[in-house]
Order: sequence, then structure tokens, then C-alpha cells
Amino acid sequence: MDMLWSGWGDPAKAAPLPDTVTGLLRDLLGVRPRGAGPVALEDIRVPASPLTGAARAALAAAVGDEAHVRTDAESRIRRTRGKSTPDLLRIRGGDVSDVPAAVVLPATHDEVLAVLRACAAHGLALVPFGGGTSVVGGLAPRQPADRRRPFVALDVRRMDALLALDPVSRTATLQPGLRAPHAEALLAEHGFTLGHFPQSFEWATIGGFAAARSSGQASAGYGRFDEMVLGLTLATPEGALETGRAPRSAAGPDLRQLVLGSEGAFGVITSVTVRLRPLPQTRVYEGWRFASFEEGAAALRRLAQDGPRPTVLRLSDETETLIGLADPGALGASGALEPAGCQAVAGYEGAAEDVAYRRERAAEVLRASGGAPLGEAPGERWAHGRYAAPYLRDALLDAGAFAETLETAAFWSRVPELYAAVRGALTAALTESGTPPLVMCHISHVYENGASLYFTVVSAQGEDPVAHWAPAKRAASDAILAAGGTISHHHGVGADHRDWYVREAGELGVEALRSVKRRLDPSGLLNPGVLLPLD
Amino acid sequence: MDMLWSGWGDPAKAAPLPDTVTGLLRDLLGVRPRGAGPVALEDIRVPASPLTGAARAALAAAVGDEAHVRTDAESRIRRTRGKSTPDLLRIRGGDVSDVPAAVVLPATHDEVLAVLRACAAHGLALVPFGGGTSVVGGLAPRQPADRRRPFVALDVRRMDALLALDPVSRTATLQPGLRAPHAEALLAEHGFTLGHFPQSFEWATIGGFAAARSSGQASAGYGRFDEMVLGLTLATPEGALETGRAPRSAAGPDLRQLVLGSEGAFGVITSVTVRLRPLPQTRVYEGWRFASFEEGAAALRRLAQDGPRPTVLRLSDETETLIGLADPGALGASGALEPAGCQAVAGYEGAAEDVAYRRERAAEVLRASGGAPLGEAPGERWAHGRYAAPYLRDALLDAGAFAETLETAAFWSRVPELYAAVRGALTAALTESGTPPLVMCHISHVYENGASLYFTVVSAQGEDPVAHWAPAKRAASDAILAAGGTISHHHGVGADHRDWYVREAGELGVEALRSVKRRLDPSGLLNPGVLLPLD
Repeated sequence: MDMLWSGWGDPAKAAPLPDTVTGLLRDLLGVRPRGAGPVALEDIRVPASPLTGAARAALAAAVGDEAHVRTDAESRIRRTRGKSTPDLLRIRGGDVSDVPAAVVLPATHDEVLAVLRACAAHGLALVPFGGGTSVVGGLAPRQPADRRRPFVALDVRRMDALLALDPVSRTATLQPGLRAPHAEALLAEHGFTLGHFPQSFEWATIGGFAAARSSGQASAGYGRFDEMVLGLTLATPEGALETGRAPRSAAGPDLRQLVLGSEGAFGVITSVTVRLRPLPQTRVYEGWRFASFEEGAAALRRLAQDGPRPTVLRLSDETETLIGLADPGALGASGALEPAGCQAVAGYEGAAEDVAYRRERAAEVLRASGGAPLGEAPGERWAHGRYAAPYLRDALLDAGAFAETLETAAFWSRVPELYAAVRGALTAALTESGTPPLVMCHISHVYENGASLYFTVVSAQGEDPVAHWAPAKRAASDAILAAGGTISHHHGVGADHRDWYVREAGELGVEALRSVKRRLDPSGLLNPGVLLPLD
Repeated sequence: MDMLWSGWGDPAKAAPLPDTVTGLLRDLLGVRPRGAGPVALEDIRVPASPLTGAARAALAAAVGDEAHVRTDAESRIRRTRGKSTPDLLRIRGGDVSDVPAAVVLPATHDEVLAVLRACAAHGLALVPFGGGTSVVGGLAPRQPADRRRPFVALDVRRMDALLALDPVSRTATLQPGLRAPHAEALLAEHGFTLGHFPQSFEWATIGGFAAARSSGQASAGYGRFDEMVLGLTLATPEGALETGRAPRSAAGPDLRQLVLGSEGAFGVITSVTVRLRPLPQTRVYEGWRFASFEEGAAALRRLAQDGPRPTVLRLSDETETLIGLADPGALGASGALEPAGCQAVAGYEGAAEDVAYRRERAAEVLRASGGAPLGEAPGERWAHGRYAAPYLRDALLDAGAFAETLETAAFWSRVPELYAAVRGALTAALTESGTPPLVMCHISHVYENGASLYFTVVSAQGEDPVAHWAPAKRAASDAILAAGGTISHHHGVGADHRDWYVREAGELGVEALRSVKRRLDPSGLLNPGVLLPLD
């Protein structure tokens, strides 16, 4: 199934906001209905494809069939940008200024190589396209007006096979176009799971996880995606780069880690070898309450550093907890309008005995750290709704609200400063422009040495919602760098974070990567202006 | 204290071989005394330093004091090559053809940058020098005769401070010249350990661990050194490269992993930020016996994949176990000359309760996998002698034997084939040249998806011991690649593995790294010919 072109996910799952939420938006944030839903798909005026006949013929030859080179309006609209809120606002308004010239659908690594050669020969740029769930502008090249090349979206959806599975080594080799649920289903037939469950799980692809260094909600137990990857094949304009001969090696720099996070700027990932875990016998998620974000963060840190480690571990701040309680289901469950504090979720997956041991010991630590157990109901509610937030965003946009998220990570000692700085920057910037926001935050991933912070911002839309958000996003990004955070813990760089990424990586770091790009992609056709500045 | 110039470690700890071992060598391997100990240090004829007066002045200006630019014979001999057996055989024979022109001792990152600039200005090459324990030819540039530059050894020993320690985030920033015991002592004052205990522990440095992707004997519990590193500073001829803003990030490729394993070819590592663990309350090591290497390997795999994970986990094959039992102390402990099988060591370090839980549950798994417990005595003997093997090598060389080690890693399903292939290659090659060897092996490190194999070869020396070993080393390296192994799991590439590394990394992978090198080191002055082929 194709994702909703103008929003998130399965159109059948769209749901209007509950009246309680509409009331909150109106009373708290001054949100007024704007009646500005998406334009109709058929009303969007897409410019004719600039693809020349020769280029089209070369692409068709590369993929073996004209049917796999699409230039119809709908195919191109569906690969226009990603799913950030500005992306959605633009496409809802019918803005297709970033539309690809064509969509090309290769079926094999060799066909990808051929497509790259065809693009190089015909002056085309190329954007690898998986689930299309980028929220950082990773799918729209940034090319200067005076040397703008048409670009093709290379959609990897036909490359969706499980290529190999080694039950002894517990590894599998997956094609990049496999969506996560399909990959999990294929692995489950053999008794295994990848354990990668980001919020984009239902739509995102294996290739995208690798290209953007995704991290899932169960990272405390299963690790980040980049920690799961044992090998990659990268198709570049200069040929194939194969990495991952052994699980660990001292043979030179780790080339896998050069491909992971390369966001299509070095090549197209055509296979990913991952580590597998046994399907868990048991899954249990439970809620905990802490008096403050600080107290809860200290508890999470204790578990992350000294164990035992839950599989899922997250903590909402006071605002996010309070707003969560506006959900009548949750209100009923908590039983009373007591001071909300901060709610945490601790989840355990694995063999029954191991889950029991970890759960019991972790509960001791959480209690000793000031946590009050809320039982399984809040944990189950979290698990049930874990992929639903992007649907809520569509409903918020329909209701005239603006909603966006951003995220970062830092060492534990910097987390309090980072939290305050980003909240402050977002609140100040949006208040300044007349739409005081609600800023919510949760610790979404924990490590021995630090944690990620995931912010959700809701406000009224303002007259021009895209322009309205830009200064707040800049202020938050500046605050992240100033407070010692990374510009992205798991969304990636794309075009939206590129200038901050350059500051974070430093001039020589960026130069090292650009030298790699020049070698692998001499004509600079791959995702120009994404991740790395243009030459 | 300086390491023995002609061998390993503290000269006061040298010990002759027990008579039983001498007997074994003679009867089993045909080793005959050759009476060829090292030449005297003062008898080595070192060519005059080719350093020009201008170059010397520039280096002295870079480090602020002429005393930190040394050109005396002893200083230069002590930085000639590393500690592989061919290295030792050459230096014992007085061969100083790889002697540096000078030894330079900077005290700060800025002084390192200044030294690099001075080298670039005066046509010098440079080799970063830490503990000098490379066993892969990482300390002697390989330059063609027609464009051979004199090189300086940049010894980082004056950079031996703990720069920062963050007890909340559990991180520390260390200078590269800190030897591991000194680093551990500094961290222990704060209640922390790094947990990195390779066989070179007593002599190797933090910078060397990072540059060569070291892995310690307790890697099952503490991880590899590259997994401990959170940040690095690299001084290059083009300036400084700083990495590691957050513990984890999705902001682009991981530049840390480009510096780790770069073996001095990209720059000089001038600081390393590492993760810390609390000093363990409890340490216990115990021995286990398995009927066969295959059965023992399956048991280790079960623990590595499903846990609980010991801190130390290793398994000797039948030959290594048998030879270990030639040690009278061990014989007495095992009580009888029963069939040796394969001996494993499982060690546990950590909080008392955690150690007790893991030990008990791991024992269940080991028993269920066919293991017989041998108690703590063999474990304690292993722990006591864990850094002693290189001393034994010196004694073997003195006795006329040849002894060398090599190592690799592969996915679990390839381990049996890899084991057989490397043993076979070593045995065939040395038998062919008239010195049938004893080949021993142990699994030295375990991962969910694979393991490393560490081989020890002992034979008679042959007439020209260096030339004698070369075809066996080549045959073993070819066998490693053919059987799916990496050319090094923890020793690194150096010059000795370079040609196999190029095959392993592939043409485009090597080209990507060379493009980085050209950007960071345009004149190619850094460790030329080590890790990467010359342009």
C-alpha cells in the first residue's frame, strides 16, 4: 500500500481529534480552525517531466523495462519531499517545486549501478527513495538555480527480498526496499527479530534505516540500527563498495560506519546484513511515575549505567505527561486528577526467565530512585499507540494547529542544560512571532553515557505556517549546538540540518567526507546538497 | 621504564624456559640451540641521522626544547620497528635499516600540529609512536627506494595526562601517551576502570589502542576498545579533526570510526574520550573443560548469543590445552594425566550480586553444553599469567625456537572452516620448509555473530628465521581471506597485512580511505605505506 501522499500512513486510519483536544488547542494555544485541508491530488499542476527522450531510454535500459521509469504526475508527487511538517504543509498546499523528473524502480544491485551510470551520462541527479519518511529534508536535492539538474527518485521498493539468513551466526542479509514490518515477518518465519521499532516502523525501509542511522523505541534492549548492521553493499557511480567481512575487525577504519549515515550522498545502499535476535517469548511494558523530570532522568541513568537494562525505557516530562492525561482513556486508568509528575515506560522483551529477573531488579532500582509503579495499563497503552503520533499530526494540521518534532542527544551531564535550552529557544521564538507553543519532551533513548531528548511542539499555525516555523527551528538548532547536543540523534541531517551539521562535524571532518564523496560520486549527482554542502 | 629494546617488557622479568619445555621443543619440534642471543646494544652501528640542521631546528622549535628532539643511537634504536617476531629477530641481529632519523617528543596537541608542519616543510615522514608494541609492522614506513624520506618517530610519552573526568556521564578524556596501567591507576582514584586488558596491557598506550582498534581479554564484558571510544582529537598536517559530540548520533557517518584503525596514516591521535565502568567489586575466573574444540565453541556461542555474558570468555583448542598441561603447576592442579580435551576460562567482574547471578546461570549453560567445571585454580593461573606470553617468546627465541602469533575473526558459521584452513596452511608451509610446527589456537573474543581465533605457532628456527616465516605467514593470510576471515581482529594492518587488507576492503573501499588521506595529509608524510598503499 502507498502512504497517504499529503500526510502520514494509511488513509483509512486517519481520525479526527477528540473534542477534548480541540478544546485544549483553542483554550491553551489559541488555535482557530483554518479550513485549509490538502488540495486534491488531481488539482496539483505538475510541470512536464524535463527528462529527455535519450535519458528516459537510458534509464529504461538500465532497469530493463519502460514500465519501471515513471513520469506520471501521481508517481512524481508521491516522491516529492518527505514527511516533516514543512514538507506536509507544502504538499498540502500543492507546492511541487521539488518534484522529481521521474521515478525509477530498479530490481537489483546491478540495475542500480546501471541507473547511476545513466544519470551520470545524461546530467541527472539522483535521490534514493525508500519509505519516504525523512523528516529532515533528505529527499529533495538543494541545487543552486544556475546549475540545477533534473533529478530522478530511485525508489528501491522492488528490492524487497530476504537474501540470506544464517541461523548459526544469527545474521540476515536484507534488500533495502523491505519495509520494516515485512522484514520482521520474513525473519519471524525463522524465529528471529531485528528488534528495530522506530515510530516510522510501519512505513520505513531497511535501506533508509541504514542511510539515516535510525534508532528504534526498543534501543535500550536491541541497540540502534547502526549497531545492528554487520555489512552493507553500496552502489556508487564508481562501482560497488562492499563492507562487513567479520562481525568485528581491526583491519583499518570501519567502512560500515562511513556508509551508515551517508544519506544517499555516497551511493545507494543495495543490501544490509544485520544481526538477529530470537523472537521474544515474553513482552511486558509498564508505567512508572516520578515527581520530576530530573528525578526520572536520574532513575533512567542508573538503569542505563548499572543495569539491569530494560528493552524499552523512556520518560516524558511534566508537560508531555500532563497532556497525555488529557486522553480520557489514560485519565480513567490513573483514577484521579492527582499531580501528574513525569511518566516513564519500562518494557522488557526476551526469554521469560530473563524478563522476570530484569523486571524485578529494575523495579527495585526505579523504586529506590523515587519511582512509583503504575502497573501495566499505561505501558500497554503506550505500546498500542506507539506508531500513532504522526496520524495525530495530520489531524492537528487539519484543525489549524502546527505540530512538529525534533530531537538531539548529549552526554548525561549536559542533558539538563540541553533540555532547558531547547525548550527555552522554542518557546521564545514562537512566542515572539505570536503563537506561544506547548513544548513537550521525552527521553527517548538511553545509553551508559548519555541520552536523547525528543521534543514535540504544538502551536497555532500563524499566517504562513512554514515561514512561521523556520526561526523557531533555527533557534532550537542553535540552542542544541550551544548546549553540547548533536543536531540529530536519529532523524539524520538531510538538507534541514546541514548547516548545523557542518558546525558540529567541523571543517576538516566535513572535508574528509567531501573527499570521499568526490571519489565515489565525481559528478556530484547523488543527493546534491543533502548532508554535505555542494562543492 | 623503557621496554627491553631487543625483546619484550621488563628485562628483570625475563626467565629461561623450564627444562620440560626445552625437552618438548627438542623432542617434538627438533629445536636445537643456536646460541644466537641479541647483539649488544652498544655494538649496533647506527647510521648518522640524516636530519638537516634546519629540520632539527624546526622540530626543536615545534616542541619548544632541543632536548625533545633526540638523534642519539639508543633513542633511535628503541623506536626501530615494533614487536613482531620478525621485528625482534631483525633487531636482535643488529639490523637497524628501519631506524628513524630522530625521535621527537611533543607535550601537547599544538606541539604535535607544529611537528607535523615542520615535517611537511622539511620533507620528513613521521611515524606516531606509543608503546611500540605493534606486531604488524605498523612502526616502519614502507617507502620506495627512489623516494625515501627520512622519518621521525613522534613519541607521545610526554602526553600522559588524564585531561577530564565526568563521573555523571562516566567519561574520561585521556592523552594518547598514557600507558594502560597508568590510565587505570588514574581512573581507579575516581572509582572507575576502562576494562581494557589486552596482552600488551603493561606497555601499550591509549593512543595505540585507538589507532589500531585493540581488543582486550575482557572484551566479552567491557567491549572492544573501539566500542569504548566516545570521542577523539586527531592532529593532521591540515589541522585538527575533533569527533564525538554525543554518545550516539545520526548526524552523518561516524567520523570516530574513521579515525579508529587509521594507524597513524591520517594523523596523530592527541586525545581519546572513553566510557568508564565502575571498578568491579568482585573478580572471579574459573576453568572449564570440553571434550572437543567444536563442543567448547558451541558453548561459548550459546553464552555470547543468549547470555548471561561472562566478562572473560576464551577457549583453547586441544593442542594449546595439551601444551598448557606440560606446565607442572597445571598438571598438579588437574590431578591426573586424563585426556585434556579443551580448556576454557570464564571470568566474571562486577557488582557482587551481578557476578553471582551471571556466574550461576552461565555455569548452567556451560554444563548443559557439555562443559565440566575445573574450579577457580585454572582461572586464577590464567589471570596470573595473562600478560606473560611475550616473555616466553623471548626465551623461545633464545632457545633456538621460532614463535609467532596471528589472529583473525569470522562469523560463527565460518569459524570451523577458518580454524582448519589456517592451521592447515601454517602446518603445510612450515613442514614444506623443513620445520614442522606446533600450531595452537584459542577463541580469544566472542560476539553474538562470530568470534576471533588466535593462533600461536612454534617451530624450529630454520637457517634464516625471518625468511623462513614469510611463506607461512603469506599462506596463513591467504587462508584467512579464503575462509571468510578478516586479516586482523585486533592486531591491525600495519605494513605486514597491507596487501591482504587491500583485498579485504576492496578497491573502492581503499580508494575512499586514500581520498581521506590525501585531504588530511596531502604530502603523504604520515606513516607512508602503512595501512594504505602509497600513491
